[in-house]
Amino acid sequence: MPRSVGNETVEQMLSVLGTSSVVTEPSELRAAETATFEIHHRIPMIVRPQTREELQECVRAANRQRIAIYPVSTGKNWGYGSSVPTADQCVLIDLSPMNRILDYDERLGYVTIEPGVTQRQLYRFLQDKGSKLWMDATGSSPDCSIIGNTVERGFGHTLYGDHFANVCGLEVVLPSGELVETGFGGLPGANATRVYRWGAGPSLDGLFSQSNFGIVTRMTVWLMPQPEYFQAYFFQSAEEDSIGAFIEALRPLRMDGTLRSTVHIANDYKVLNAIQQFPWQEQMPLSRETMKRYQKSLKFGRWSGSGGLYGSKGQVAEAARRVKRALGGKASKLQFLDDRRLALAARFTRPYRLLTGLDLSRTLELVRPVYGLLKGIPTEAPMASAYWRKKMPPPASPDPNRDGCGLLWYAPVAPADGASVTTLTGISEDTLLEHGFEPMISLTMITERAVACVISIAYDREVPGEDGKAMACYEELRQRLATRGYYPYRLGVQSMGLLDSNRSRTEFLETLKQALDPNHVLAPGRYLRSEAGDRR
Amino acid sequence: MPRSVGNETVEQMLSVLGTSSVVTEPSELRAAETATFEIHHRIPMIVRPQTREELQECVRAANRQRIAIYPVSTGKNWGYGSSVPTADQCVLIDLSPMNRILDYDERLGYVTIEPGVTQRQLYRFLQDKGSKLWMDATGSSPDCSIIGNTVERGFGHTLYGDHFANVCGLEVVLPSGELVETGFGGLPGANATRVYRWGAGPSLDGLFSQSNFGIVTRMTVWLMPQPEYFQAYFFQSAEEDSIGAFIEALRPLRMDGTLRSTVHIANDYKVLNAIQQFPWQEQMPLSRETMKRYQKSLKFGRWSGSGGLYGSKGQVAEAARRVKRALGGKASKLQFLDDRRLALAARFTRPYRLLTGLDLSRTLELVRPVYGLLKGIPTEAPMASAYWRKKMPPPASPDPNRDGCGLLWYAPVAPADGASVTTLTGISEDTLLEHGFEPMISLTMITERAVACVISIAYDREVPGEDGKAMACYEELRQRLATRGYYPYRLGVQSMGLLDSNRSRTEFLETLKQALDPNHVLAPGRYLRSEAGDRR
Repeated sequence: MPRSVGNETVEQMLSVLGTSSVVTEPSELRAAETATFEIHHRIPMIVRPQTREELQECVRAANRQRIAIYPVSTGKNWGYGSSVPTADQCVLIDLSPMNRILDYDERLGYVTIEPGVTQRQLYRFLQDKGSKLWMDATGSSPDCSIIGNTVERGFGHTLYGDHFANVCGLEVVLPSGELVETGFGGLPGANATRVYRWGAGPSLDGLFSQSNFGIVTRMTVWLMPQPEYFQAYFFQSAEEDSIGAFIEALRPLRMDGTLRSTVHIANDYKVLNAIQQFPWQEQMPLSRETMKRYQKSLKFGRWSGSGGLYGSKGQVAEAARRVKRALGGKASKLQFLDDRRLALAARFTRPYRLLTGLDLSRTLELVRPVYGLLKGIPTEAPMASAYWRKKMPPPASPDPNRDGCGLLWYAPVAPADGASVTTLTGISEDTLLEHGFEPMISLTMITERAVACVISIAYDREVPGEDGKAMACYEELRQRLATRGYYPYRLGVQSMGLLDSNRSRTEFLETLKQALDPNHVLAPGRYLRSEAGDRR
Repeated sequence: MPRSVGNETVEQMLSVLGTSSVVTEPSELRAAETATFEIHHRIPMIVRPQTREELQECVRAANRQRIAIYPVSTGKNWGYGSSVPTADQCVLIDLSPMNRILDYDERLGYVTIEPGVTQRQLYRFLQDKGSKLWMDATGSSPDCSIIGNTVERGFGHTLYGDHFANVCGLEVVLPSGELVETGFGGLPGANATRVYRWGAGPSLDGLFSQSNFGIVTRMTVWLMPQPEYFQAYFFQSAEEDSIGAFIEALRPLRMDGTLRSTVHIANDYKVLNAIQQFPWQEQMPLSRETMKRYQKSLKFGRWSGSGGLYGSKGQVAEAARRVKRALGGKASKLQFLDDRRLALAARFTRPYRLLTGLDLSRTLELVRPVYGLLKGIPTEAPMASAYWRKKMPPPASPDPNRDGCGLLWYAPVAPADGASVTTLTGISEDTLLEHGFEPMISLTMITERAVACVISIAYDREVPGEDGKAMACYEELRQRLATRGYYPYRLGVQSMGLLDSNRSRTEFLETLKQALDPNHVLAPGRYLRSEAGDRR
């Protein structure tokens, strides 16, 4: 059972790491304790191991001292808790200095990376190598850790959008400080460690995702070959019930392999949130009627979607034909865009404005990041949406924690079934509006059969009372959705007890935890609340 | 630590299950102890629970009695040990009576099944429903269990060829007798349990594949929608080094998604093995020179491959163009076949023979099962290959255990790299020939980046000394390949200690085993040899 951090702990960590890697400076600690919502978990110390060996020493020291440690890769877990631990008084282990790219294979399409490697870093690495491989990027900051996002089972936009399904060969520091490798890793000279996920014997990768059973210090990430041709498609509809129709129309294409990548569909609120900040001339929350006005004036739909087509010219043309046929009569607008048309549009923004009076460059500014994400190019653009209800404009270097942006994400999963998704979005929109928040919703057809729905509660933490209002809304949303059988794919640090109703599973996880981490030093309460709850 | 089975164990099992489900009849026990190679693990009793609840009672009784139990689904683990347990004196738990198909969704494409459900049963079920969904079949007996094959991480031929990658929502009886469900399973009313693999929190599916941590009693298996159009392709080359060229040519198509299903490539020995039994007029083992004669007379290649193209007419035509371009100059023959051409060929076998003197029906007889497997149709045909060196012809109801067929399978994984695969097949062919066996090899491009290689050592167990010779060959093959970094995707019951060189991983697994199964009653030694070794 972990104790509080005392002077001897600080000394132990100093002896393990040296002064430059141990932080007890109050302002840094307070910053690390700040999320985009209210949470009061104190961090007594931050340590920054430079190597896996140093990390192992930290874990061993934690066991000796019986203190709790909480690893983050880069700590940019926006909307789910940023770098804040799942329990009070954990020493934060910041893995961002471990940022080597250890292996790269252009032919077999992979890189092997450490937890500090960010989206931006990998993207630049591939550019520098002149690589013909594309990474998959999540629509969060380019400074997010790839391993961090992947072990949280985040997703992106390309063929490799289901991140955890496209990695293998994990190296993991266990709560004991010992090391284990997954798949064929650890077998002398194994050839297939970085290309074959399962290895032989029990497959352990899943055990180290969304868990507190180990710290992933190395991972092989598969990369897709740049296709001969790429085309993005954009569609929308003004109809209220178009979301169900879209899902029904696109599921068969997802299932038959015409659409091999994730499809993203956003509601009107989410699109407005991407275009601008809260329009202060309007009443709060923006009503459905107000949104109709914005839909018309800014030319977006009640529901708007996008996706990518990847392949040879012929393959893409055939896929585009099938998308057109599937969305015919359902989408009021369906547009295709490729590199050539994008370049052309950019060249003609000035003459276009002179002729029509419309500012095409503004549209391009909005389209370009989405288009880029479909090609795996990380972008800062979506970070601005966290400033929705802030009175300040999004700064050049956005930091939602620092700037008091309120942001709570809840991400339930539904079957790729029109009726089910319609029910889910209906409950979510109603609940947020009832609580005074704009219901910003994006849906991702993440696999052939499943849709992940991300609901944002965005507010201004500097407005008194809003923190509490937002959390109450979150709680009610969670409860209403659970009653209808919708559960999230990922949890925030404040809501780790959310799945405790599954008693037999919780007991099973507790048995594993007790065996692997008898001192309960590693990330107590992470995806296993009762274990922390028993203690505190 | 398990004890031997005594009268009180039999009585306990009888009280749990009733007489009809407890077998102590010696002839049945001896049959269950017989594999396709020499192994001496005695089975004191077979029990056949009819329901999950009965199974749980058996597991609890095993804990009370401290006796070891070993579950099999249908026990048709040919070449890897049939139904023989990984340790001596285990009570065999035969799950074949638990054979319900519990759920079926035509739109979302899945069935939920119990361990006794066979390939044949699911195929018929889908036919009876008039379903437009295709299952994936492995080229083993139609009476194989689907769950059994999947938890062993077997593979097939269609888009869903990597079986374990296309299932979710496991229900598992733990060694304690308790139940756990994976993914969203076990959460009240969860909608997405059968469509979304990961759930929330640690993903546990992998833990119950190739392991002795639990008994999978329920699984959702995803099914692919029947494509608008299907075409098979067949290719071959007489060149010695064509295997490397094939892998290099096809990997890019596998990686860019042109080939979305597994590609199978067989060497000349494997093709002859599929066509006929050992030609007794020849010297044993068949030399490379002899094989060249057969290649010419029977018109197959040194290496021969096949695969399927699935999609709309346009998608398949584009894929076929790309396959042609990739294999141009590398394959001496490349042929495409669809339902229409197959029906046409069948209609013209008689006139064709009258005209040319060639028997097309014989070719069709060989092609049809392969063609069917590419469409997920189970077939008995490959079972005949186990009778390669038997003096009897393959019987109408093949049973390799009963008929003394010698068959040892070893299945190393290589990266999808021409040089690596060439090295692997070279070592394997040399080793088998040196030991007096025909090296029958099939390669499956199982994912974008990996090739699974199945090497068969086929012999006649009734010939004195052959059992020992075969196992010596297997051992040397294993060692030579390990030295070069090739490790198997799956282990035989006789070789479960094969990965023990990975000490840290073995220790990790032992920690889990100790926590989950403190009495070590469940399948001792399964994928964790040292744990059994410590005891005996």
